[in-house]
Amino acid sequence: MLINEQRLKCELAEISEFGKLDGGGITRLAFSVEEKNAREYLKKLMLEIDLQIEEDAIGNIYATLTGSEDLEPVVSGSHLDSVPFGGCYDGTLGVMCALEAIRTIKENDCKHLRPIQLIVFSCEESSRFNMATLGSKVITGKLNLDDLKRLKDKTGISVYDAAKEFGCGVDELNKAVLEENTMHSYIELHIEQGPVLENHQIPVGIVTGIASPIRYELVIKGRADHSGATPMSMRKDALVTASKIIIGVQDIAQNKGSDTVVATIGYANAVPGVLNVIPGEVKLGIDIRDIDEDSLLEVDKLVNELIKDVITEDGLTYELTQLCKDTPTKLDDKIVQLLEDEANKLSIKSLKMPSGAGHDAMHMPKVSKYTGMIFVPCKEGISHNVKEEINLEDIYQATNVLANSLLTLANEK
Amino acid sequence: MLINEQRLKCELAEISEFGKLDGGGITRLAFSVEEKNAREYLKKLMLEIDLQIEEDAIGNIYATLTGSEDLEPVVSGSHLDSVPFGGCYDGTLGVMCALEAIRTIKENDCKHLRPIQLIVFSCEESSRFNMATLGSKVITGKLNLDDLKRLKDKTGISVYDAAKEFGCGVDELNKAVLEENTMHSYIELHIEQGPVLENHQIPVGIVTGIASPIRYELVIKGRADHSGATPMSMRKDALVTASKIIIGVQDIAQNKGSDTVVATIGYANAVPGVLNVIPGEVKLGIDIRDIDEDSLLEVDKLVNELIKDVITEDGLTYELTQLCKDTPTKLDDKIVQLLEDEANKLSIKSLKMPSGAGHDAMHMPKVSKYTGMIFVPCKEGISHNVKEEINLEDIYQATNVLANSLLTLANEK
Repeated sequence: MLINEQRLKCELAEISEFGKLDGGGITRLAFSVEEKNAREYLKKLMLEIDLQIEEDAIGNIYATLTGSEDLEPVVSGSHLDSVPFGGCYDGTLGVMCALEAIRTIKENDCKHLRPIQLIVFSCEESSRFNMATLGSKVITGKLNLDDLKRLKDKTGISVYDAAKEFGCGVDELNKAVLEENTMHSYIELHIEQGPVLENHQIPVGIVTGIASPIRYELVIKGRADHSGATPMSMRKDALVTASKIIIGVQDIAQNKGSDTVVATIGYANAVPGVLNVIPGEVKLGIDIRDIDEDSLLEVDKLVNELIKDVITEDGLTYELTQLCKDTPTKLDDKIVQLLEDEANKLSIKSLKMPSGAGHDAMHMPKVSKYTGMIFVPCKEGISHNVKEEINLEDIYQATNVLANSLLTLANEK
Repeated sequence: MLINEQRLKCELAEISEFGKLDGGGITRLAFSVEEKNAREYLKKLMLEIDLQIEEDAIGNIYATLTGSEDLEPVVSGSHLDSVPFGGCYDGTLGVMCALEAIRTIKENDCKHLRPIQLIVFSCEESSRFNMATLGSKVITGKLNLDDLKRLKDKTGISVYDAAKEFGCGVDELNKAVLEENTMHSYIELHIEQGPVLENHQIPVGIVTGIASPIRYELVIKGRADHSGATPMSMRKDALVTASKIIIGVQDIAQNKGSDTVVATIGYANAVPGVLNVIPGEVKLGIDIRDIDEDSLLEVDKLVNELIKDVITEDGLTYELTQLCKDTPTKLDDKIVQLLEDEANKLSIKSLKMPSGAGHDAMHMPKVSKYTGMIFVPCKEGISHNVKEEINLEDIYQATNVLANSLLTLANEK
């Protein structure tokens, strides 16, 4: 069973029109007119193949191809909203490939016991309301009505109001919450948003787990002095101390913890930050991620010790603020094995890898018995950027793996 | 011979009124009304003791106490302009202490062969026209009319126009240029703008040389990638490479070159500078200074090698722009020895030290046979800041050293 490449290519181009920017890329914010139009276009395609469409209180779309038995569905999907000045594929690709996979199964008259469902999550990007994966958080019971009234965009509009205006029956939020094992399985296809697959020239990444970040802002306090008039021995240069921490964090991430741990200092803002003054203060943004929780916590501990030791030894002081601390999601070995087997059967190269970025899939183990993800390469790993680009040949192969995997799962008793 | 402490204290308070800010400190930009009023106040004091006042084409004031013979004058002074939100003592202190020293010599009817001259330099601070020590540059022939027309402030007013508006006969700039050895000697008193004297509790610093900066902007180019999705081994993190350079520069300045060399990285600006992206580019501002030219050039060479080696080894690229490169000024041993002797005679503790910051004195060897500087402590080394503060007891002692040194020099044949 193989997908219709030409059709997928054509529809990817068509849906990229909704929120299209002059210079390439799209802006298609959650609950915007652009997203609404993209959803209408998609629903038309769903209806053409007689999928049963339902929408829940937060706007998640469930489109179901009924199976021959009354069993929990096999599900695939992603999201249609984008960041401002975003790419055409982050989220949307997973939706369109899932549609093509389901359509291929239907067109080929493949027997399947379980229903196969396409899900389109609401508001995955954090750009508008400063919180990511709202749709999947709602169905897994992680947000209530008060939360939706509290979360607001820059213009003061709450998620609650935006969803209501969008046509969602948001007051019946409880009805959107799913029970454990409501789904048999969930597989999300997504661009990698990193360079690994492209560098290895492999079209299919099989995600083994989704990392969660522990984030800090560290303020190192030294003393601002005249850069010409202060001898080296009398300085309290916060940027020199910051540099030791930056290198130390890199060393810990490279040599301690698991192979999948990453740690990044995204900025080192010196105050006052001019040529003739020794930096009296430096702010560092620290981001630590792993799919292995033990390793994440161990690296976090080592980074905390490093900060204390280095700054104390240099005779400076600091303030460390934890910005967030989430738990990593391990994805199911069963799905990892299935995806690898299906790729092998199609003679498609695949690579097991962690996801450093967060996705709706990370919430799904709460409502789906088995959860997995397929990554496809994106050019130079660029994402959240109008320059986001894919290679269609990779997409066709990955979608074939998805379609065959969904079918296999849908025939499990 | 001792100065009148109460009078100096009072006049320092009075001149601090010109450009005074509500929260303390002053803004008294070059060629501003505030500076003009401070100059008028000062000229009144000069006339009270019958000094002969002349002003040159750029606005430098020469106020002369005639000697008994027609010899080259012994000179002291500094500047009255300030940075925006500056302190009351940077520059102004050197002018007021020189006035008090000359007045003390006159009041004590001390015999002196040479004229003793107070000089007030125009536009020492770079804040307005982005170039420092304009007045002393003009008299040493380092600037011509075209330069003054080219140098403009943020509102588009040139030095030429500002000086003309201020009342200077700027078109006769050539007449302001002095010949070699026009002055017998020049001694400038200035706040240290560093913490050394305060830390050692010494009221008089004897400056052995004035450092000159070599400055660079270094742009390190790595690759911006998703901080969660990019394995440690595949990164080109410009901030990690920048940190190695920051630590390397610190190491070179501490362990190579002379005891007086200093090197500072004032900022490390990461691009894009957010938590979820690996820094793809970092801009470093590098400032290297020494009073010892050989050492300065050696350290400069080592820093250049370090930059090349570190960035090449990390597989990144860079652009290095030299912002300035000046020659350090060695001050005369004769003046250093004289100041030390005069301090000893008065039982005042002194310390030989380099000046990390630039001053008008650095140009004076071109027109003065002997040049020297006296530093006085400032609180915590803070300068170019409304919090700039001095201890008057230190000032009185330093001014006594200045007065007696000027008198000794004025009696040299």
